[in-house]
Amino acid sequence: TYFAGIDIGSTAIKVALVHGDGTLAGAHVTASGSLFHKNAKEALQGLLDRHGLRREQVRYLIATGYGRKLFKEADDSISEITANAIGAHEAGKAFGGVRTIINIGGQDSKAIQIDGEGGVVNFAMNDKCAAGTGRFLDVAARNLDLDLEDLGDIHFNGAGAALSINSTCTVFAESEIIGLLANGHGKGEIVAGIHYSIARRTVRLAKRVGIEDRVYFDGGPALNKGLVAAIEDELGRQLVVPEHPQTTTAFGAAILARSEYLAEQGDEA
Amino acid sequence: TYFAGIDIGSTAIKVALVHGDGTLAGAHVTASGSLFHKNAKEALQGLLDRHGLRREQVRYLIATGYGRKLFKEADDSISEITANAIGAHEAGKAFGGVRTIINIGGQDSKAIQIDGEGGVVNFAMNDKCAAGTGRFLDVAARNLDLDLEDLGDIHFNGAGAALSINSTCTVFAESEIIGLLANGHGKGEIVAGIHYSIARRTVRLAKRVGIEDRVYFDGGPALNKGLVAAIEDELGRQLVVPEHPQTTTAFGAAILARSEYLAEQGDEA
Ligand code: SF4
Repeated sequence: TYFAGIDIGSTAIKVALVHGDGTLAGAHVTASGSLFHKNAKEALQGLLDRHGLRREQVRYLIATGYGRKLFKEADDSISEITANAIGAHEAGKAFGGVRTIINIGGQDSKAIQIDGEGGVVNFAMNDKCAAGTGRFLDVAARNLDLDLEDLGDIHFNGAGAALSINSTCTVFAESEIIGLLANGHGKGEIVAGIHYSIARRTVRLAKRVGIEDRVYFDGGPALNKGLVAAIEDELGRQLVVPEHPQTTTAFGAAILARSEYLAEQGDEA
Repeated sequence: TYFAGIDIGSTAIKVALVHGDGTLAGAHVTASGSLFHKNAKEALQGLLDRHGLRREQVRYLIATGYGRKLFKEADDSISEITANAIGAHEAGKAFGGVRTIINIGGQDSKAIQIDGEGGVVNFAMNDKCAAGTGRFLDVAARNLDLDLEDLGDIHFNGAGAALSINSTCTVFAESEIIGLLANGHGKGEIVAGIHYSIARRTVRLAKRVGIEDRVYFDGGPALNKGLVAAIEDELGRQLVVPEHPQTTTAFGAAILARSEYLAEQGDEA
């Protein structure tokens, strides 16, 4: 018996599979592309194939994220705030429990405060402005002619001399980055400046919900160790970063799929 | 005897020259480029050359705009809000007088309410977010592979079927524009949608200062007739658009240069 969660985001589709006992069996990340629905189906099938499973072995499937409504194959759907809270609560147990979640996605950022059971107490979200989201990192990497994956390492070449990026607007920051390059500044110090700029925004968002206990950081940008260091610096405390930060929300949806299935079984019994 | 004003903006440098009686003698617009100071000096010299004037014939020169502090050649400097108010008040007389000014610049947008003498009563400004500024038009033109100058005409091909651009953020709107093109939408209806998006933001800004009497619209984007039509539509009234909307602020600085000079002469007499 397996349960699955699928998180259909604006930039990536994440699928997580849990065993009958709720432990993680596997997870998978693919690009969303423009064919959301087709790509979501393929992402799920890909993960099943990798584990040698048939679709029928997945008893219950919950969809979450931006594109969840388009995915009719799911048994249920849930908001990404709730799914993220459940996933972080579960994954956070190994770190002694977490009460605050910072999530930076491809096109949004969120801060969530949870209670001791993983229930959402309070949250704040930005999905209107590219600054402070993964999109700013994409744009900056393009301006600097770097791969997104390399920003984390390059950060540490320049962190000691991080430049301050004055424009909070991603569009105006692009011009500023180009100007800094033209003035002979190194990519490391520019990248570190960008990370600190996102970090300040992120901490402001987190403070709006209130920072409690250990802070869990997830979403694709949490793979960027330079950004993690900048946020820790601005926050004045360490972050709990899971090994696979992109799949926490899908994992939460899978956990919830299991609970819902078991509750329904209980009702029928 | 001549007086001059120079408006050193983020994207263009504007110079205006007035006669001894305060009437406009000529004006000139050049790109700011990265060498602000050098380009500002050349812009002034270019205008003087065009009118066969020597520098000494300009009795008083006032600088305004973003780069005004760097331009030591000026006799004085003044904020662009004040200069814009004076210039619009003076130019507005030919239209029966104006009390509200909407200015859209390359990297900012402003609304100013003035009194019957051109004094600033109230103003609101956005220079933090590219949406609602000329920069959004630049970005959109690039995404649509169009020249900035062509947006105005193309607007009227699509105004009847203007698409709604849902993202207020310029960065997210870029993706939306690319998506609309990919879905086979015409450039005219996309351009009209962009103009309405800027128009709504502009009207919101203007309402913050209060819309009084006739509304004067200046800044480079006021050359775009499609944008003018969209703002008039959202505002529910006609705009007063000067023939050379880019140079109103420089003209205001030149008018002020004359007044300051005459006041000093009066003091000495
Ligand atoms: S500040 Fe910049 S990044 Fe943010 S909404 Fe405005 S245009 Fe977008």
